[in-house]
Amino acid sequence: MATVTIWNEFRHEREDDDVAAVYPDGIHETIADGLTDGERVHDIQYATLEEPDHGLTEDVLERTDVLLWWGHEAHDEVADEIVDRVHRRVLEGMGLIALHSAHYSKPFKRLMGTTCSLQYREAGETERLWVVDPGHPIVDGLDESLELPRTEMYGEPFDVPEPDRLVFLSWFEGGEVFRSGCCYRRGSGRIFYFRPGHETYPIYENEEIRRVLRNAVAWASPTDGSPRTFGERE
Amino acid sequence: MATVTIWNEFRHEREDDDVAAVYPDGIHETIADGLTDGERVHDIQYATLEEPDHGLTEDVLERTDVLLWWGHEAHDEVADEIVDRVHRRVLEGMGLIALHSAHYSKPFKRLMGTTCSLQYREAGETERLWVVDPGHPIVDGLDESLELPRTEMYGEPFDVPEPDRLVFLSWFEGGEVFRSGCCYRRGSGRIFYFRPGHETYPIYENEEIRRVLRNAVAWASPTDGSPRTFGERE
Amino acid sequence: MATVTIWNEFRHEREDDDVAAVYPDGIHETIADGLTDGERVHDIQYATLEEPDHGLTEDVLERTDVLLWWGHEAHDEVADEIVDRVHRRVLEGMGLIALHSAHYSKPFKRLMGTTCSLQYREAGETERLWVVDPGHPIVDGLDESLELPRTEMYGEPFDVPEPDRLVFLSWFEGGEVFRSGCCYRRGSGRIFYFRPGHETYPIYENEEIRRVLRNAVAWASPTDGSPRTFGERE
Amino acid sequence: MATVTIWNEFRHEREDDDVAAVYPDGIHETIADGLTDGERVHDIQYATLEEPDHGLTEDVLERTDVLLWWGHEAHDEVADEIVDRVHRRVLEGMGLIALHSAHYSKPFKRLMGTTCSLQYREAGETERLWVVDPGHPIVDGLDESLELPRTEMYGEPFDVPEPDRLVFLSWFEGGEVFRSGCCYRRGSGRIFYFRPGHETYPIYENEEIRRVLRNAVAWASPTDGSPRTFGERE
Repeated sequence: MATVTIWNEFRHEREDDDVAAVYPDGIHETIADGLTDGERVHDIQYATLEEPDHGLTEDVLERTDVLLWWGHEAHDEVADEIVDRVHRRVLEGMGLIALHSAHYSKPFKRLMGTTCSLQYREAGETERLWVVDPGHPIVDGLDESLELPRTEMYGEPFDVPEPDRLVFLSWFEGGEVFRSGCCYRRGSGRIFYFRPGHETYPIYENEEIRRVLRNAVAWASPTDGSPRTFGERE
Repeated sequence: MATVTIWNEFRHEREDDDVAAVYPDGIHETIADGLTDGERVHDIQYATLEEPDHGLTEDVLERTDVLLWWGHEAHDEVADEIVDRVHRRVLEGMGLIALHSAHYSKPFKRLMGTTCSLQYREAGETERLWVVDPGHPIVDGLDESLELPRTEMYGEPFDVPEPDRLVFLSWFEGGEVFRSGCCYRRGSGRIFYFRPGHETYPIYENEEIRRVLRNAVAWASPTDGSPRTFGERE
Repeated sequence: MATVTIWNEFRHEREDDDVAAVYPDGIHETIADGLTDGERVHDIQYATLEEPDHGLTEDVLERTDVLLWWGHEAHDEVADEIVDRVHRRVLEGMGLIALHSAHYSKPFKRLMGTTCSLQYREAGETERLWVVDPGHPIVDGLDESLELPRTEMYGEPFDVPEPDRLVFLSWFEGGEVFRSGCCYRRGSGRIFYFRPGHETYPIYENEEIRRVLRNAVAWASPTDGSPRTFGERE
Repeated sequence: MATVTIWNEFRHEREDDDVAAVYPDGIHETIADGLTDGERVHDIQYATLEEPDHGLTEDVLERTDVLLWWGHEAHDEVADEIVDRVHRRVLEGMGLIALHSAHYSKPFKRLMGTTCSLQYREAGETERLWVVDPGHPIVDGLDESLELPRTEMYGEPFDVPEPDRLVFLSWFEGGEVFRSGCCYRRGSGRIFYFRPGHETYPIYENEEIRRVLRNAVAWASPTDGSPRTFGERE
């Protein structure tokens, strides 16, 4: 029902054979597969870094209900003008789902107002995500936890504002924890940061992760609301 | 779509001619009229203080998605056993909409954990409710503010926990302000406190107020979530 | 500077040799030792279950700035009248620090409005507490994490309202996580739930845990504030 | 005790006779007068737009505990490099108090991540500020409300993230309301937005407003906390 735009940096997949082996058509295609489970069919568009306006023209954003963002090694190449555009649309109501290393993407950092720094370790270790908010629509249909056998570790402190709603906490084999599912409202827009994902582990093929993404798209879709009128009065 | 139970103390309307003139069939009937606007037809049940179990048997609560609560002069006559039952159901996911003087109702106070005290004045003065969260589904279709020509004043401080989300602020002619629309999550349940309402002013006939109540029922309806499992592990 | 009252159920220590071996003078004495580090000398009082009014007379509570609560097996024996009294004083500004199994104590549950249930396992496993809010006064002087070699596990979901401020997250050897340090404001009172503690592991002799408790007492101490005036106006 | 830096755009006072009549030595001097009430003597520094680095060198910021910010007509002239510097220091722990039209200042907008827009009207109307959080240290010693006879109106919606703690609500004669005292934490820094203030009304000579500013400086002062360590681990 929602119109979803999946933004992918789309560089790893073309430059690195290991990544290409996992995501041969680009990570955006794999994410898109997970969003279409037969029940909830979304209208899906793609946008990538190398396109004009990184694929995020005014038109594309105007008709986007929810934007998913995957970026990793080229955050700095995203033009500030496009960041302004995405930022404005989120405040107007467009949902934003920031995936994994998108904690460092420009649009997410702009919206958070903090560094969004964290600790990390690439060791292919086990991660278990615990649901800490069992009544949240983002966890509809999940079990009390879900396990990923091989992931990159992200550890606290995570320099973000206190989430409006904390949905997932991660446990890592090596001894760390992380706030892995964080909900925010900024302006009229809903923002969900979701930690899992990696360019060489096939995280987005995991059925439970796909369920979370589908739920998150539904949750982040805009509602009508009331007018946002600013400026001089009377 | 949702199954809604409207609980009414139902005493004023039978004991006081002024109240009976405004709400001849009971305030619950007027509230119910507002919930059925043709578009969103809910399955509506009534429950009142004088019935066995105050009308809130295990069965009734089990099939209730959202409970609306109107009480005013007989809060203390609500049996603790029934309060326990309502409380448990809210934590399991049932929505609760506490109306006007239900700030002092036992179920709402139990869920808040505070006195829920406030200041008040009965002077038939003008109230203007301002939307402070224009992106919230509870304000879908509203203008930036709505006005009630004659209301009882409720003033700050309002002794409740900081709301998860503050939706409305009221301005009163006499110089006071009030947090009039407050959203909370407790367990898996969604709770909305909504200030407007009175036994002798026909607040629940106001079209904008009715719209808020319809939106609030949709917002407070339970989602599936994930299991709430407690106790010893492994 | 603050006047601190340490409430202890004080039953385990007298009925169970294993507990008596760890806390021969009662767990309250050990907690008190940790609060007096030379720098910050508090005026400390004790109160226990068997005393009249459980030691919590109006007078005692009136002069208490911060109440620490340890209870485990006799939560139900705490009289509701005393719970009312503690509850009222917290709303007026008295700080409350709920320790370990006090998540199930009557005053804490009253203030939270939820079941405060969780998962647990008694297996003497390692716990690592991560600071997720490095700017909070409760973590003054701590490192980025602290480790307890043998603890009882508490796991999510923890059925409490979303904390105003989440300070610690726990990682457990067996694969669970927990929100171990949670800050709340209710009325004018500050509440801190702190998970570590056990009747047979000497948690309260740990220097880092003692530092947290001293910091928490300072944080939870009341400020002057402004009047809490309720009722009819003008 | 704290080292306070008062930043003033310092343009109105030199270009507009009406402003100069109210604040002949600059609004920073009047604010400073209010911070030194004999009891709590702060070390106060000034910084203004026209100075090199707008007076906010690395050295000045390094020794600043709390930065107060007054700006109005020249927000855009503040260099981004200096905004980066202020932003970084706030995340490290420096307090920031944004006064009146500083809702539109670059450092405040950077930290909030939203437009910080609002409605306004310049009509010299009465404002009454209500304390909605009577237990907060920022309201120590205040009455339940305070009144300003002539102010510029600011009205909702105010496009900021939901405050961590809402302390004041304003009522305006003309029918509007506003969240006038908003507390935030970003990184290790405490941020307080305080609405009152104007270049031609002598708001900062009001004793109650001065009390709020003194309390806010105490509240926003950094604590030691624990290390903020980011990056690769192990």
